[in-house]
Amino acid sequence: MIQVAVVGYGYWGPNLVRNFSDLPDARVVWVTDLRADRLAAVANRYPSARVSTDHNDVIKDPDVDAVVIATPVRTHFELGMAALRAGKHVLMEKPLAATSDEACRLLDEAARRGLALMVDHTFVYTSAVQKIRQLARSGELGELYYYDSVRINLGLFQHDVNVLWDLAVHDLSIMDFVLGRQPIAVSATGLAHVAGRPENIAYLTMFFDGRLIAHMHVNWLAPVKIRRTLVGGSRRMVVFDDLEASEKIKVYDRGISVDGTQDDLALMRIGYRTGDMWAPQLAIGEALHAVARQFVDLIVSKSPSPSDGFAGLRVVRLLEAATQSMAAQGRPVSVVEATAS
Amino acid sequence: MIQVAVVGYGYWGPNLVRNFSDLPDARVVWVTDLRADRLAAVANRYPSARVSTDHNDVIKDPDVDAVVIATPVRTHFELGMAALRAGKHVLMEKPLAATSDEACRLLDEAARRGLALMVDHTFVYTSAVQKIRQLARSGELGELYYYDSVRINLGLFQHDVNVLWDLAVHDLSIMDFVLGRQPIAVSATGLAHVAGRPENIAYLTMFFDGRLIAHMHVNWLAPVKIRRTLVGGSRRMVVFDDLEASEKIKVYDRGISVDGTQDDLALMRIGYRTGDMWAPQLAIGEALHAVARQFVDLIVSKSPSPSDGFAGLRVVRLLEAATQSMAAQGRPVSVVEATAS
Amino acid sequence: MIQVAVVGYGYWGPNLVRNFSDLPDARVVWVTDLRADRLAAVANRYPSARVSTDHNDVIKDPDVDAVVIATPVRTHFELGMAALRAGKHVLMEKPLAATSDEACRLLDEAARRGLALMVDHTFVYTSAVQKIRQLARSGELGELYYYDSVRINLGLFQHDVNVLWDLAVHDLSIMDFVLGRQPIAVSATGLAHVAGRPENIAYLTMFFDGRLIAHMHVNWLAPVKIRRTLVGGSRRMVVFDDLEASEKIKVYDRGISVDGTQDDLALMRIGYRTGDMWAPQLAIGEALHAVARQFVDLIVSKSPSPSDGFAGLRVVRLLEAATQSMAAQGRPVSVVEATAS
Amino acid sequence: MIQVAVVGYGYWGPNLVRNFSDLPDARVVWVTDLRADRLAAVANRYPSARVSTDHNDVIKDPDVDAVVIATPVRTHFELGMAALRAGKHVLMEKPLAATSDEACRLLDEAARRGLALMVDHTFVYTSAVQKIRQLARSGELGELYYYDSVRINLGLFQHDVNVLWDLAVHDLSIMDFVLGRQPIAVSATGLAHVAGRPENIAYLTMFFDGRLIAHMHVNWLAPVKIRRTLVGGSRRMVVFDDLEASEKIKVYDRGISVDGTQDDLALMRIGYRTGDMWAPQLAIGEALHAVARQFVDLIVSKSPSPSDGFAGLRVVRLLEAATQSMAAQGRPVSVVEATAS
Repeated sequence: MIQVAVVGYGYWGPNLVRNFSDLPDARVVWVTDLRADRLAAVANRYPSARVSTDHNDVIKDPDVDAVVIATPVRTHFELGMAALRAGKHVLMEKPLAATSDEACRLLDEAARRGLALMVDHTFVYTSAVQKIRQLARSGELGELYYYDSVRINLGLFQHDVNVLWDLAVHDLSIMDFVLGRQPIAVSATGLAHVAGRPENIAYLTMFFDGRLIAHMHVNWLAPVKIRRTLVGGSRRMVVFDDLEASEKIKVYDRGISVDGTQDDLALMRIGYRTGDMWAPQLAIGEALHAVARQFVDLIVSKSPSPSDGFAGLRVVRLLEAATQSMAAQGRPVSVVEATAS
Repeated sequence: MIQVAVVGYGYWGPNLVRNFSDLPDARVVWVTDLRADRLAAVANRYPSARVSTDHNDVIKDPDVDAVVIATPVRTHFELGMAALRAGKHVLMEKPLAATSDEACRLLDEAARRGLALMVDHTFVYTSAVQKIRQLARSGELGELYYYDSVRINLGLFQHDVNVLWDLAVHDLSIMDFVLGRQPIAVSATGLAHVAGRPENIAYLTMFFDGRLIAHMHVNWLAPVKIRRTLVGGSRRMVVFDDLEASEKIKVYDRGISVDGTQDDLALMRIGYRTGDMWAPQLAIGEALHAVARQFVDLIVSKSPSPSDGFAGLRVVRLLEAATQSMAAQGRPVSVVEATAS
Repeated sequence: MIQVAVVGYGYWGPNLVRNFSDLPDARVVWVTDLRADRLAAVANRYPSARVSTDHNDVIKDPDVDAVVIATPVRTHFELGMAALRAGKHVLMEKPLAATSDEACRLLDEAARRGLALMVDHTFVYTSAVQKIRQLARSGELGELYYYDSVRINLGLFQHDVNVLWDLAVHDLSIMDFVLGRQPIAVSATGLAHVAGRPENIAYLTMFFDGRLIAHMHVNWLAPVKIRRTLVGGSRRMVVFDDLEASEKIKVYDRGISVDGTQDDLALMRIGYRTGDMWAPQLAIGEALHAVARQFVDLIVSKSPSPSDGFAGLRVVRLLEAATQSMAAQGRPVSVVEATAS
Repeated sequence: MIQVAVVGYGYWGPNLVRNFSDLPDARVVWVTDLRADRLAAVANRYPSARVSTDHNDVIKDPDVDAVVIATPVRTHFELGMAALRAGKHVLMEKPLAATSDEACRLLDEAARRGLALMVDHTFVYTSAVQKIRQLARSGELGELYYYDSVRINLGLFQHDVNVLWDLAVHDLSIMDFVLGRQPIAVSATGLAHVAGRPENIAYLTMFFDGRLIAHMHVNWLAPVKIRRTLVGGSRRMVVFDDLEASEKIKVYDRGISVDGTQDDLALMRIGYRTGDMWAPQLAIGEALHAVARQFVDLIVSKSPSPSDGFAGLRVVRLLEAATQSMAAQGRPVSVVEATAS
């Protein structure tokens, strides 16, 4: 039985507590939050969990095996480091840390101590994203040509991070999982419409080796909600619309074929293929349950996680590079390759 | 009665001939195309129009008042210049020319000779785009925050121009008309998936003075067709979906309000407003009919055109800058301001 | 503080318990269900509620003020009558009873004892349905012409009631609330695709005095989920799509106008009007919370309820007549008018 | 070369003329209409066709092989009979005639003279409807359970026929083609909202032998346009949305399975199946071209037509029975079986 403490009980914390409580081999023993009012609900619903406004109670408790951190990004490093140093496994809310340097140091600390370090890249645990990965990795889509996502709505303006760190972090973690390849450079643009606040609208292009390009559009100030990803391949193309109740994923047998060779450009002809569309039925289930399950399995049996610390680092590196490019109106910034997991 | 010659009878030419034929004060007297097979249909449908495979027949005919040029972009300058020098008014298919230098020289020639020079920015003549312009210019949207468009589908790969010149040209002409402001710099990214061909997927960000940003996504290799533009303002936001049969334009009373001042960032609070949506009924009518009407009015009564040569030049300048930036992976490129019309 | 007992803890019971628990002036003191396994969850979540597999524990408890009955329809009458006879107020799941005779007897019993009797016509408490009622009753739609609803999906086949009693009950309660008028006759058709089971697909037409007609389509065996209601009036028409995340209600300024008089049919001309569409922003909030609130207010302050026993009776009468007509392949059946509330 | 005359040049006539003109083995030699103004356009576009305001010119012309009749329904019988008696093949606009008696007499006349008699059931010639028929007839859908269609919009109110004869005629011809089975009884309801005019809203249920039911909803006074048909089978279900640009047909692997036998109802269990969806790519092409092609083939080589006179009669019999039932508020009316083609 893994003894779990959840630090941070704001928007996402209650979901984490609920899902860890549902696991047969884990128990939530602590819930902490700076705001005492939030903790009132915990006592009622989870009588076996202790509550506190001081996360040090968790760090100091030798019975705690693992700490789940769901606090603002700027606190991730300090809290994560304290937990690791106290010998506790860590599941961190996305993004893993506020800088790639911090992320590296968390990885190092976990590795040195043989502790589990995982990031809650929730989408990676949905059946929709897993299906897209399977389509992309199995070769069913052919050579991958582009990855294009839009994640916009009228959303909460964050104080401390720009919209990339809040919304594109989802798409970057999905893309990392689906493609299994790393961009070599990024170009990002964006704007802040509220003086003194970070950018609330941003566009991010990523360049890969070969003929693959990726792009993300994120926006906190859109009149409508859109959650749509296109993955284009030489053989098939996928449309993933996360707002569809069913038919979230549609696979299109559409594309082009090129006759002739590069040596013979003048004779080269492009053919267009328009075939059937197919929407695979997806398994139902809460992704966060699978996140909790995976974290416990990682602790107990070293079962490899698709959202381990390295995945977390790769995403942070892209966010860092993108923010740098955005400050320079799209000037391309190269991405240092993160060590593979 | 204005005697009109149409040069180029491929995809768009027949529509131009039909619409000029429908005008009571214009007559189509010539239709030319390099391919004789295309001209066969003309003789049947428009017995009063002469046909030729040599556009010089048009240039030399003193009875021709105006030439409508619907040929590939690379031929625009030469054909347009020949027509102007022969004293004929010119309506050019979009984009006006292949370079801003060519566009300037066409403008100069037309101005020197007192001839009409107009570009067929067709969308500018639709009731949908005119409604958006009216909303934007009347202040109903408040301060303009962003302009975001997506124009993708499985489309014909062009040989000689990249996807920006083929698809984004529509969005740039719409944006020019709606905003009435010029970007000061652009950052574009894109990729060619067929070796030896120009880019078939592209992303274009434009920066303006103040808090306005614009972005366009164009793609010839998408599994689905999307034609969607968002215009975000401080008071209202517009979604324009050109594939909707009715309700092409939806106006949302949504957005944010900022309490507090810039001096007082710590106390600044953001409020969120979610109000009604409204879809104005739009007039029905073929936009190209209005283009033809406007061109004749420009010739006859100097009635000012929303798609005059200056508009054509402004769009070409943006395409030129974008293509330059795209070659440098998004490096920002400043836009020389075109003389206002 | 009203002491509430909830009888039946299957699909809907947990929602009832949660919403009554959230009221400041009510307390859930009992939860009963025939299946003990369902009750296990109650003890954890609501430590102050007692649980039992015998609903008589509730009936006999003098501290219970009100009983909420969420059991199969065939048990409504017996349970409701027992509760009323024990002097307890009753909130009944829809439909109120299995026959109009049973419904009448429940109404009589409640009236004689001065007890509250209410039906959980949940939709009547949504902001969407309240907006439609307001549009219809205020005259904004003009004279009402038709009410047309579709409620289909791949749903659970009930054992004891046909699809009208399971699905159309929602639409009938909405229609009753929106129109405030009673049909005078019904014609229904339907079919059972599983031998020995009640009809799983049904169509129901209702005739009113004057030029108003209503129709409902319900189906447990549809490949897609549709929840769409049209309300047509002489001045405006409403489309209510309950699956839309926002824009559930769209009001169209469309219709016809008739010139000329009936005496002069030959000269009568019909004009068509196609105007704007408008989607009012709707308040957010769980309808069942408002149901619970209303029930307590009805008990405490006799605050009139839009889903009182009379509304419940009117709906049951229509279901009864429709079932009768369906057995006779659509033969029209007249509806005895229920006493108005 | 078949010499064709088109009688009636209103809404649909121009499409018929155009499509027959496009056939290599047919020639349009006459176009007639009571209104001379409509004929002006013909002379320009089809110089080889003669025009007249008197259809007798067509009947008397011995060079005319076939007559295409696109006039109001009430004139179908007289015009068709005159053409057949003059020894001319006939293609009739839908519905074939105003009564089944008239339809029978047209069939008799054509049979006696060995002339072709065909109805323009246009939808039967679309690739979408042909795909649905293939799915239904091949057994891919399993046992057919229901056929459900909705065809509504703000449409032209007809003077002389109710909305069933104007709109449901499309659905009845599709259903006849797809199912290949005849209903044995109908129940219809509807209402006229304009005094003195026929019903503008109607609902039609059809009963078949076995476990098959069909329903149609047609309405000239709807705020939105809907063209949607569901075909439910025991193995698969189809959604046909004719307003979708692509993906008009979606095939769902969804449904129920019944365990246990009828003798053993208490133990009978229903299982629910939710599988993939598949949208077959459909061939592109104008259906009316195929109608014209089929008519000429029927004349020249007796190639059997899916919309021969018998199909026309079957549809008229259903319209007749439905109108009768509608006048009696849904009282079921049995359908006399039309002789199979």
